[in-house]
Amino acid sequence: MKMYGRVGGCHPGGMAYIDLGVDEKSFPGITGPMAFRPETAKPLNELAEVLLRAPNSLPAAERELIAAYVSGLNECVFCCSSHTAFAVAQYAAADVTDGASIVAQARADLDTAPIPAKLKALLRIAGAVQQTGRAVTPELVDAARATGATDVELHDTVLIAAAFCMFNRYVDGLGTFAPQAPEDYTPMAHRIVEQGYGIPQVR
Amino acid sequence: MKMYGRVGGCHPGGMAYIDLGVDEKSFPGITGPMAFRPETAKPLNELAEVLLRAPNSLPAAERELIAAYVSGLNECVFCCSSHTAFAVAQYAAADVTDGASIVAQARADLDTAPIPAKLKALLRIAGAVQQTGRAVTPELVDAARATGATDVELHDTVLIAAAFCMFNRYVDGLGTFAPQAPEDYTPMAHRIVEQGYGIPQVR
Repeated sequence: MKMYGRVGGCHPGGMAYIDLGVDEKSFPGITGPMAFRPETAKPLNELAEVLLRAPNSLPAAERELIAAYVSGLNECVFCCSSHTAFAVAQYAAADVTDGASIVAQARADLDTAPIPAKLKALLRIAGAVQQTGRAVTPELVDAARATGATDVELHDTVLIAAAFCMFNRYVDGLGTFAPQAPEDYTPMAHRIVEQGYGIPQVR
Repeated sequence: MKMYGRVGGCHPGGMAYIDLGVDEKSFPGITGPMAFRPETAKPLNELAEVLLRAPNSLPAAERELIAAYVSGLNECVFCCSSHTAFAVAQYAAADVTDGASIVAQARADLDTAPIPAKLKALLRIAGAVQQTGRAVTPELVDAARATGATDVELHDTVLIAAAFCMFNRYVDGLGTFAPQAPEDYTPMAHRIVEQGYGIPQVR
């Protein structure tokens, strides 16, 4: 496996590769490039809103968990930390208090994680998409269908996983700043749960 | 290297993994899932329009070439074939008649391809993004700047490459149908050049 020098998308000098025109500590991760280029931020936020927060037969917490899971596989510290926090906040909003443990166990070992069989099967598809779309097999799809997954749920799982292969590369490819402590992502999580994905504002 | 059974996102049975609700021969590649889920098609098309076709210091042909290049690295037959056709059509619209040869040479060997130094440097960044965002290095960015690349051009190159890591996985992860002959993509190319990216219609 090839090793990369940087972790967490954090440029050695602590600055992104381009001048984002904002204080990077106040606009961490994707929020800096979104402030820099509002023309692309608009459809990116709209895509995230439809996939992760709009009404859906998959709970918002489970969709955020798919996002965090793929971001973890891509080793994107900002996206994995933020969508873990968003999943925990969405679980809490649905009166599930051990969301942090659920996300951690799903990321550590799908087989033993305390999550529904359908979500496990969808996460296996998401993990295949993270490698390449061609890694998704009829067997993985059939296994998800056997747990009750619908066409829309299969579609959205593939697109959420694919979208985070974009978001992760966008955030790390520009060398943006990623806060390291999980609690740094809590204010952002509250904003996402309450207000949704929109043009980023100063935290 | 792991080998995958399917090529070109073409499901062995010739059908996508979900019922897209359309004749797949008339809605190949991404156009089928876009017809199936217009809520996500809208921001996806808007993103493509801003990145690939809106006014930009990078010519549309060069932006389509970046899309085709990344799609080729991801071995996505539909996206590579379609964006190759779109690049050729955009070169033709700019009175460059050997677009097909330019795209083929860039995909075969960047070092010797008859393209501007700036585009070569940007394609090297796009190739890094295709692996992982963390593969982009200060050296790759500095080399692009030395050829005159601006912050917006660097940003857009990273996001185009990242976006095609999404589009490629979306198209292949759902097992959509990909026409095999380059000329099958010509009508689509004319429509994109003339009308832009929008909700897909029957070809």
